[in-house]
Amino acid sequence: MSQHLSPDVPVLQPQGSASPSSSAAASPAAVQPLDVQQRLAASRAPLPASTKTYEPGTLFPDLRVPLRDIQLTNGERVAVYDTSGPYTDPAQATDVRRGLPSPRAAWIEARADTEPYTGRPIQLFDDGLREATQQQALRAQTDALTRAPRRARSGGNVTQMHYARRGIITAEMEYVAIRENGRRAWMKEYCADAERESRLRGQGLGATIPGFITPEFVRDEIARGRAILPANINHPELEPMIIGRNFLVKVNANIGNSAVSSGIEEEVEKLVWATRWGADTVMDLSTGRNIHTTRDWIIRNSPVPIGTVPIYQALEKVGGVAEDLTWELFRDTLIEQAEQGVDYFTIHAGVRLPFVPMTVKRRTGIVSRGGSILAKWCIAHHRENFLYTHFEEICEIMKAYDVSFSLGDGLRPGSLADANDEAQFAELRTLGELTKIAWKHDVQTMIEGPGHVPMHMIQANMTEQLKHCDEAPFYTLGPLTTDIAPGYDHITSGIGAAMIGWFGCAMLCYVTPKEHLGLPDRDDVKQGLMAYRIAAHAADIAKGHPAARARDDALSKARFEFRWEDQFNLGLDPETAREFHDETLPKDSAKVAHFCSMCGPKFCSMKITQDVRDYSARLEADGQAATQGRGEAGAEAGAEAGLDAGVAAGMRAKSAEFRAAGSELYIPIQPA
Amino acid sequence: MSQHLSPDVPVLQPQGSASPSSSAAASPAAVQPLDVQQRLAASRAPLPASTKTYEPGTLFPDLRVPLRDIQLTNGERVAVYDTSGPYTDPAQATDVRRGLPSPRAAWIEARADTEPYTGRPIQLFDDGLREATQQQALRAQTDALTRAPRRARSGGNVTQMHYARRGIITAEMEYVAIRENGRRAWMKEYCADAERESRLRGQGLGATIPGFITPEFVRDEIARGRAILPANINHPELEPMIIGRNFLVKVNANIGNSAVSSGIEEEVEKLVWATRWGADTVMDLSTGRNIHTTRDWIIRNSPVPIGTVPIYQALEKVGGVAEDLTWELFRDTLIEQAEQGVDYFTIHAGVRLPFVPMTVKRRTGIVSRGGSILAKWCIAHHRENFLYTHFEEICEIMKAYDVSFSLGDGLRPGSLADANDEAQFAELRTLGELTKIAWKHDVQTMIEGPGHVPMHMIQANMTEQLKHCDEAPFYTLGPLTTDIAPGYDHITSGIGAAMIGWFGCAMLCYVTPKEHLGLPDRDDVKQGLMAYRIAAHAADIAKGHPAARARDDALSKARFEFRWEDQFNLGLDPETAREFHDETLPKDSAKVAHFCSMCGPKFCSMKITQDVRDYSARLEADGQAATQGRGEAGAEAGAEAGLDAGVAAGMRAKSAEFRAAGSELYIPIQPA
Repeated sequence: MSQHLSPDVPVLQPQGSASPSSSAAASPAAVQPLDVQQRLAASRAPLPASTKTYEPGTLFPDLRVPLRDIQLTNGERVAVYDTSGPYTDPAQATDVRRGLPSPRAAWIEARADTEPYTGRPIQLFDDGLREATQQQALRAQTDALTRAPRRARSGGNVTQMHYARRGIITAEMEYVAIRENGRRAWMKEYCADAERESRLRGQGLGATIPGFITPEFVRDEIARGRAILPANINHPELEPMIIGRNFLVKVNANIGNSAVSSGIEEEVEKLVWATRWGADTVMDLSTGRNIHTTRDWIIRNSPVPIGTVPIYQALEKVGGVAEDLTWELFRDTLIEQAEQGVDYFTIHAGVRLPFVPMTVKRRTGIVSRGGSILAKWCIAHHRENFLYTHFEEICEIMKAYDVSFSLGDGLRPGSLADANDEAQFAELRTLGELTKIAWKHDVQTMIEGPGHVPMHMIQANMTEQLKHCDEAPFYTLGPLTTDIAPGYDHITSGIGAAMIGWFGCAMLCYVTPKEHLGLPDRDDVKQGLMAYRIAAHAADIAKGHPAARARDDALSKARFEFRWEDQFNLGLDPETAREFHDETLPKDSAKVAHFCSMCGPKFCSMKITQDVRDYSARLEADGQAATQGRGEAGAEAGAEAGLDAGVAAGMRAKSAEFRAAGSELYIPIQPA
Repeated sequence: MSQHLSPDVPVLQPQGSASPSSSAAASPAAVQPLDVQQRLAASRAPLPASTKTYEPGTLFPDLRVPLRDIQLTNGERVAVYDTSGPYTDPAQATDVRRGLPSPRAAWIEARADTEPYTGRPIQLFDDGLREATQQQALRAQTDALTRAPRRARSGGNVTQMHYARRGIITAEMEYVAIRENGRRAWMKEYCADAERESRLRGQGLGATIPGFITPEFVRDEIARGRAILPANINHPELEPMIIGRNFLVKVNANIGNSAVSSGIEEEVEKLVWATRWGADTVMDLSTGRNIHTTRDWIIRNSPVPIGTVPIYQALEKVGGVAEDLTWELFRDTLIEQAEQGVDYFTIHAGVRLPFVPMTVKRRTGIVSRGGSILAKWCIAHHRENFLYTHFEEICEIMKAYDVSFSLGDGLRPGSLADANDEAQFAELRTLGELTKIAWKHDVQTMIEGPGHVPMHMIQANMTEQLKHCDEAPFYTLGPLTTDIAPGYDHITSGIGAAMIGWFGCAMLCYVTPKEHLGLPDRDDVKQGLMAYRIAAHAADIAKGHPAARARDDALSKARFEFRWEDQFNLGLDPETAREFHDETLPKDSAKVAHFCSMCGPKFCSMKITQDVRDYSARLEADGQAATQGRGEAGAEAGAEAGLDAGVAAGMRAKSAEFRAAGSELYIPIQPA
C-alpha cells in the first residue's frame, strides 16, 4: 500500500550497505536473538492452551473453517478467529518447499469456468537479475512450488462479485460467513444479560451488521460492492476472508524481501510470523532482486490474501527510471503477478496529471511511493497517468483471475498539515469514478486511505469515502493523529485506526514503531500487529459486531476470578502477559493465588467485591425488598437518604452478621 | 487515583517476598540495567539539542516560566512545554537532600494571609513503623528538608479559587498563562497559511480556547470552576500548571515507594524520571512503610503537583482493617499530608452506602481500591460513607492549605461489561453534588473518571460529567477501549484517552504496559508516558489549542527536508527515534543524507516531490495561468479532461525541459 511507509525493502543493496534482513536484525528488546530454526519453531507452536478446530459448512459440507479454541482452567472453551493457517495445527505437516494444501482447488475446478494454461515464461528481469545462473539457483528451491496458472475461459469473468451478482453463493462465501460468526455457543454466557446488552449496544454509524452472518448476506454484500473477498483463482491455498464495513475489521501487515535472500524458509517465516499475530492479509512490498521468486515462495505458503503494488516491480524492470515505464511493461507485470496468485493489486490510477500541481503548496508533498512514481511519469511526459487511461484494460485482467483492486491513494497526506486537502480529495473522487468502472466489470474493489490526519478530521475521510466510492470498502494506513512521536507511530496511528475502524473503515494497514525511521524487525512487526489488533477489536466493539465483545467479558471474568492463566491465554499476546506478571510474582503458586501483584495479598479490592456480593446475597436470601430499595436509591441518587426503613434495618442486621463472620482484609494464602 | 491500577505499591513486603523496586526491576528491554548513579545522570541530562529558557511575567516580572528550546540545524529554535523542572537545567544545582528552590515562597508570603505554625508532630505510625530508631534513621536523611508548615490565618481561605472569585490574579495565574501560550514567535512560520489554518481548525466540542491565554482568562476559568491550579501553600517548590478543558490536556503518572526504601536518591529518581518524560502531575500511591518520610522527600523535590489518596495511608494506620477507619483518624491524615504540601487529594466521597449493592451484578464488581475500602467500611457498619457525611469538614481543611479535590470514582467500571452502569453514574451524580459543596467553600475540584469504556460509550462519560459536575475538570484513567490485551494496556487506554481528551477531559492518568499484571519498571513508566503524551497532544490538536500543531509541522518539515537530527530532536523521545534509525543506517553520514531508510538512495518519493515543485515553479515563472488551471482541475476533478489548452501547452513544453535537465531517480550520495 505504501512506499516510504513500507517495511524492509532492500534498497541499500545497490550501494553494498549491510541492510539487515527484517527478521535477523537484533531487536533492542531481544536479549538473545533467535536463530532461524528457533524462529521457525517459535512461529509454528500453537499459542498456549490453544487447539486448532474446524467448522464444517452446510451448503458446502467439506469446508473446514479454522478457529482457535482456548481451553480455560474452569472448563470453558473460548473459540477465537484464527489467521495463522495450517502452521499452528500440529496435525498438519507443512513444508515450505512444497507449499500449503489447496482447499480451494476443488471449489475452483467445480465451477468449471477456468482452465489451466501455459503461463507467461519467467524472465531474468522478473527477478532483477543479469545472469541466468543466478536465477536457476534461486528457482531450484521453487521446483515443487511451480503450478500451471489458470484463468477464466475465454471472455469469462470469475470474480466473486460476478458470481454474487448472478445470485451464486460460492464455497468462499459460506466459508467467510462461518468464519465471521465464530462459534456462538460459548458466547451465550457472556451475552445473556439483557440490561448489559442494551447498555453496551454498539453504534454502527451506518453499518448494518446482522446478528448472524449468513452466506446469503455475504453474497449480497459482495454483489453490492460493500465487501470484497480477495481470492485469486491462482491462490488455492487461501483460507478465505472478507473485507467490508459490515464484517469484522481486518488488519494488513507489510513484508518485504531481504536484501540478500537467505532462502525460502527465511522469507516465508516473515509471513508466518505476521499471520501468527493476526495479519488478515499481507502485502508483499518487495523490491530489488529475487522479487518474482520470493513471491512464489510467499504465495504458495500463504493462508492469507497477498497484496502487491505492481508498479514497484515494473519500476525495477526499467532500472528505476519512472519515465521509462510503459503500459505494455506494466500490463505484462500484472499478468505475471496474477498468474502467481496475487489476491489484490494496489493501483494508483487516481494520481491524475491535473492533480499533481495541487501538491506544490503542501508541507510534505507526495509521500506515497507509488504516487511519486506516477507523478514523475505524468510530469515527465506531460500525459495523463497510464493507469487511468488504461483502467478498463486492467479490469479485463482482474476479472480473468479475480484479482481485487486496492485503489491506491498516491496523493495521501504525509503530515497533519496536508490532511484532507484539495489533492487528497480530488484523488478520492477519482477513485470513486474508477470504482464504478471496476464494478461495471464486476471487479472487486477497495479504496486506500490516509495517512496523517488529526482526530477531528478523521470522520470526514470516512464520510467522503463512503459518499464518493458508494460504500466500497475503505482500507487506511492508520491514520497517524500526530507527527511528533517518531518511534511510537504504531500508537499515534493506532488511535486513528481504532476511530476510523469504528466509523466504517473495513481494513487497517498496520504501522510499526520503526515507521519513518528504519526497517522493522521481527519484534517491530509484532508490536505493529498488536497495536492494530487492538484498534480493530476496539472498533468491532464500538460498531456492535455481535461476535466481538464476548472475548473481553471472558477475559474480565477470568481476571476477576483470579484465573491468571486464563487471563493470559485469552489475551492477544499470552506470552508477554505472562512474562510481565512473572517479573513481579514469578512463582507458579502466584498464578493461582487470589490476589494480584498490584495490591498483593494484604489488601485486594476484588476480594472486597466478593464480600459485597455475599452481603447483598444474604440480604436477598432473607427476603428483604433489597432490589426495590436499590432501585429507589438509584432513582434518587442525589438525595441524602437512600434506603427505605425496612431495607435499612435488614442491612443493619446483616452488617453485624458480616462482622461476626470475620470481615478480615488479610486474605490467607495457601503456602506454595 | 486508582488501586489495582496503581503501580509499585510495596504490598509484598509483609510476606517477605522480594518485590523489586520500581526502578531497579530489570526491564526486558534493558540489556544492561543502569545503576542508580547512571540513572540519576541519565534523568538529569538535558534532552538532545535542548536548552532550558525562561519567560518573565508582566504583572509579576520576577516570574521565570520554563520552556525547553530545541535548536534545529537550520537555525530555527522551537520552544516546547517543559515539565522536567530544574533537573534538566545545568545552571541550577539540585541536591535532593536539600530540596528544590522555592519560587512560590515569596508570592505566598506577599499575600500575607498565611502564617507558619508548629505542625502536627510526626508519629511512628505515619511511617508504618514500630521502632522509633527505625524512624530516626529514616529522618536523618530528611533534616535539611524539614519546613515549618503554613496555613491560612484563622478562618481564612487561601485557595486560588478564592482569590479568583474576588478578582485577584495571582502570580501562579500569570505563570500558567505564560506557560500555556508557549513562545509564539517560532510558531508563526507554521501557522501562516490561511487555507491550511482554516482546513485544520480544531473542533472544540464546547471548549472555548482563546487564541491567546491571558492571566485574566486563567483567573476567570478558575473562578468559574472550569479549571484548577493545584498548588498547596506548603509546596513552594512547585512550577504552577493548570488543569481545565480550555487549556492543554495534562498527563498524570503514578509512582509508589519501594518495598525496602533504598534511600532518598532512589525514591526521588522515580519522580524525576516521570517529569522528564512529560508527567504534568505525579500521584504518590505509596503504601506500607516509610510512607510519610518518602512523601517529604518527593514533595520537597517535586516541580510538579503531587496528588495522593489519603485513605491508603489511613488504612495502613489501622493495620489494613477497613472497618477500623474513623473520621478522626482520616482527618488527622489529611492534616498530616496537607502540612507536607500535597497539592490534591483523591477523596472517594461518592461511594455511598445505597450505591454499593448496585455493583452486585457487575462482571468485575468494585475495582477501585479506595472504592473497595469505603464500600467495605459502609457495609460493615451499615453507615453512610464518612467522607460523604464529613465532606464540609474536609472542605475546611482544603481551603486552609489550598489542597484541591480530586473526587475519586470508587465505583468506576473494571471491564467493558460494567461501563456506564447504574453504580458508575449514581456516583458521578453524587460527585456533582459534592462539587457544588466544594465550590461553596471556594475549594478547587476535579472529578475522576473511568476506567474501561468501549469507544462508542466514551462521549457519554464526558457529557454526563460536564452536565452533573458543571464543567469541573474531568480526570480520567484511560479509558481502556478493550479488555483483551494485557501487556498492551497503555495502547488500549491511549486510544480512549486521546478521544476523551478531545471530548473535553482535562487530565489523563497514564496506564503502563504492566497494568493488571505487575509493577511497572523504569521503562514501563516511560512507555506509559509516551502513549499518554501522544494522546494528550492528539487531543490538543483536535480541540484546536492554538499552540499545539506547530510542533507537528516543524517535525514534518524537518522530515521532508531530510533534517534527520531535527526530526529526532523535535520528537517526544529523541533517543529512541535515533536508535531506531541507527539500527538501519548507523553511519553519521546517513543523518545528513537526502534519503530515508525505507526507500533508500535509489528511489525517494520526497525527492520526486521536489521535482514536482521545480516543475510547477517553472510553469509559474513563465507566467502560465497555472493556478487558474489547477483550480478548474480541482473543481471538476471528476471530469475526464483537466487542464485548459494554454496550461496544457505550457506544461508540455516544461515537460520536455524537465527531461532535458535530467530527471534521474537515482540520487547521487556523497561518500561517507
